[in-house]
Amino acid sequence: MSESENIATATSVDLGSENHAVMDEEDRLRPEFVERVLDAVDAGDDETARELVGPLHPADVADLIELARRDEREGLVKALAGIISPDVLAELNDHVREDLIDEMEPQQVADLAGQMETDDAVALIEDLDKDEQQAVLEKMEPDDRAAVEEALSYPEESAGRVMQRDLCAVPAHWKVGQVIDYLRQEKDLPDDFWEVFVVSPDHHPVGTCKLSNILRSPRSTLVGDIMAKEQTLIPVDMDQEDVALRFQKYALVSAAVVDESGRLVGMITVDDIIHIIQEEASEDVLLLSGAGDEGDINEPVTESYKSRVRWLVANLLTALVAAFVIRQFEHSIERMAVLAVLMPIVAGVGGNAGTQTLAVTVRAIATNQLTSSNRWRAVGREIRVALLNGLTIAVLIGVGVTLVLGSSGLGAVIAAAMLFNIMVAGLAGVLIPLTLERFGADPAVASSVFVTMMTDSIGFLAFLGLATAVGLAG
Amino acid sequence: MSESENIATATSVDLGSENHAVMDEEDRLRPEFVERVLDAVDAGDDETARELVGPLHPADVADLIELARRDEREGLVKALAGIISPDVLAELNDHVREDLIDEMEPQQVADLAGQMETDDAVALIEDLDKDEQQAVLEKMEPDDRAAVEEALSYPEESAGRVMQRDLCAVPAHWKVGQVIDYLRQEKDLPDDFWEVFVVSPDHHPVGTCKLSNILRSPRSTLVGDIMAKEQTLIPVDMDQEDVALRFQKYALVSAAVVDESGRLVGMITVDDIIHIIQEEASEDVLLLSGAGDEGDINEPVTESYKSRVRWLVANLLTALVAAFVIRQFEHSIERMAVLAVLMPIVAGVGGNAGTQTLAVTVRAIATNQLTSSNRWRAVGREIRVALLNGLTIAVLIGVGVTLVLGSSGLGAVIAAAMLFNIMVAGLAGVLIPLTLERFGADPAVASSVFVTMMTDSIGFLAFLGLATAVGLAG
Repeated sequence: MSESENIATATSVDLGSENHAVMDEEDRLRPEFVERVLDAVDAGDDETARELVGPLHPADVADLIELARRDEREGLVKALAGIISPDVLAELNDHVREDLIDEMEPQQVADLAGQMETDDAVALIEDLDKDEQQAVLEKMEPDDRAAVEEALSYPEESAGRVMQRDLCAVPAHWKVGQVIDYLRQEKDLPDDFWEVFVVSPDHHPVGTCKLSNILRSPRSTLVGDIMAKEQTLIPVDMDQEDVALRFQKYALVSAAVVDESGRLVGMITVDDIIHIIQEEASEDVLLLSGAGDEGDINEPVTESYKSRVRWLVANLLTALVAAFVIRQFEHSIERMAVLAVLMPIVAGVGGNAGTQTLAVTVRAIATNQLTSSNRWRAVGREIRVALLNGLTIAVLIGVGVTLVLGSSGLGAVIAAAMLFNIMVAGLAGVLIPLTLERFGADPAVASSVFVTMMTDSIGFLAFLGLATAVGLAG
Repeated sequence: MSESENIATATSVDLGSENHAVMDEEDRLRPEFVERVLDAVDAGDDETARELVGPLHPADVADLIELARRDEREGLVKALAGIISPDVLAELNDHVREDLIDEMEPQQVADLAGQMETDDAVALIEDLDKDEQQAVLEKMEPDDRAAVEEALSYPEESAGRVMQRDLCAVPAHWKVGQVIDYLRQEKDLPDDFWEVFVVSPDHHPVGTCKLSNILRSPRSTLVGDIMAKEQTLIPVDMDQEDVALRFQKYALVSAAVVDESGRLVGMITVDDIIHIIQEEASEDVLLLSGAGDEGDINEPVTESYKSRVRWLVANLLTALVAAFVIRQFEHSIERMAVLAVLMPIVAGVGGNAGTQTLAVTVRAIATNQLTSSNRWRAVGREIRVALLNGLTIAVLIGVGVTLVLGSSGLGAVIAAAMLFNIMVAGLAGVLIPLTLERFGADPAVASSVFVTMMTDSIGFLAFLGLATAVGLAG
């Protein structure tokens, strides 16, 4: 798409003599624009910076701050004072926001939190140290403070942390006209809501009414007659990942959150859920690779180091197991060094086959496709795929080694070891995450290390062991 | 959470003498329930099966069909005739749905598609063979057919395929009262809509009105006065991944889709987008592992085989490059077989370090966090993390090898090779996906193969080369 076709970009700013689009076609700020703003800040020309940034959406202002270097951010934020709204803070990457918040006085943080919806205020405050949290809470208005403290009393990453307390609830005996009049008068409603919850006198949800249903019904209609009685209620202590799956499964736009006694205590809307889905899916990519669940490019270097080095050390230990296996065959290798040339092929391709199965299995578990009902079928399926893959690769490498090295014995040995290792990889790739999940562990966290250990050790053992057993290295 | 607390599960069915919940606390159908239904079908007792399944949400009926074995599905679907609504089909996994559709007559498929919204009908029809597509289209009602054909004329995975054509658009000079009256009278509106689009006389979008804004404004208010003028318009040929990022970034619930001339042609709602976000994130996990972008546990074995074996063959080729490197040092290995014992450690831990960086980089690119503005900063960041990781692992393995094998020379060589390889891994892990992205390729697709080739080859080269150069194996 050329720039001129980019009809989606509403904002464009005068950059020098020509009128350039601020964003590229993928909604990223253009580097020239970012530079222009930072140069203005650098030159002390705050007014130009504010003029440039003023028309941007809060999400784009947040992007701008993230794209600035760490040492430029403080100056940028100072220059943009007034433009950096609570919405901008809510959109910021966690690591970058923490950095900025650390520089602020408790009173400033409290003021910002007071202007946010509960869920955003909680996100702002929950990552602070206990002391700082306390200092900020003390500076907040009593009812805002009570709302945040209540949210913080729920477990991290639970529905209680994500929900907002402002919502719209009406009794079932109201007529549509009454609801419309109430909505027109009531000032204390959330900025965005898409459904009205219908509650019993003791504040238990009994139904849900889409706003379109209210709009499309005559004023005399009873709310109880047009509400959907089948509701999807979210327990306040439900894990946010399960909340996200529920939103996705039942195509929800908002949902009522209820406490243990079933009373309506809050509402979760889909815009918060989209972030969670993105986060949880990213988490699986990162965890499978051993990069830690919070690894992103804004994470401070020392934290990235800490979360990654743990897995590298784990990987070092499993590599030592593989080395121990090889050591048992040192004499064979001395007599026939070509074994050492070929052995990484068996381990490497096996490892890759294991990772493939692992990725499919972890995603199937995470999206609730793989349950105890179809567990054994999934295992059977992976065995069949592994058999086909194993036979193909075994033939290729067997024929290749026979032709290039002129030893059909070696060709047969590597083919057999490869087939065996790919079968082991398929089994390990599906059974290890299933087993971890059964014991309540996150299958994305440690599966890779176990699978690699299996495919490395068994790959070397099968190849070197077989070569030794048939007397190739005799 | 115990079963009795599971207040979220509205449906419960009489299973024998006791009243059990049909779903577990993570919204998965309980195995006992699945078995009960399948046993009933097996025994020819369709009525019991229908009674059990009747109260389920379409998404749960879809899950039930997915959880059944492939050879049980046809019988199940026959027994549940009438319960399997178009909504159930729309919720089904692509692979499972294709299977079912293949068994149906074109007329049946056409009838089902006719009852769906355009986007779901397109999803149903787009995966059929050209001939079958034609046969189904010919059996459809003319206007449904025209809608589907138009959608199919847009590229796969573009906004035009995902959008629905039914939407609610009003002129800016209308008053709120007029809009409400129109909504009450007009029958041909989508089932779900959350915003009303405001259009100019030539049907260009000029603003958006949330339903809550309409409900909360007096009847005499002009729509033009309460609409949001800053809109996020989606070009009809935009890739669905970019659409999803835009929804996420700007927290959209629905958005107008416009054609090349800027006319309003459709609407995309957030429920369709949630699926896309989930899909695209899963794709990254699968592609990075080399399992193919459609790998899921419902994919037919032969297709899984085809998509996976390609990457295993690619992996085999890169393993051959590594083997070629080792072969240059065969004499060193013959003289000192312990080199062969240790070399997989250098390659393996390096490979893991590369995968960590790769995962972080690919996700940052996919979520638009990493742009040309902060590219070099990200590279610098990975170099620093790699340096810290490399030093840590080098010290551990160097000291370990010195103590266990009693050779400080070998310890020094493996430590140096390890540090070097982890640095290479960090650089390759960030530069390879950035380069692929710059040339318009999907960085998730081929990056792993290149990174592994680098870390394997360079790991072996550095370790064996250094050991040979310093005369250890002399």
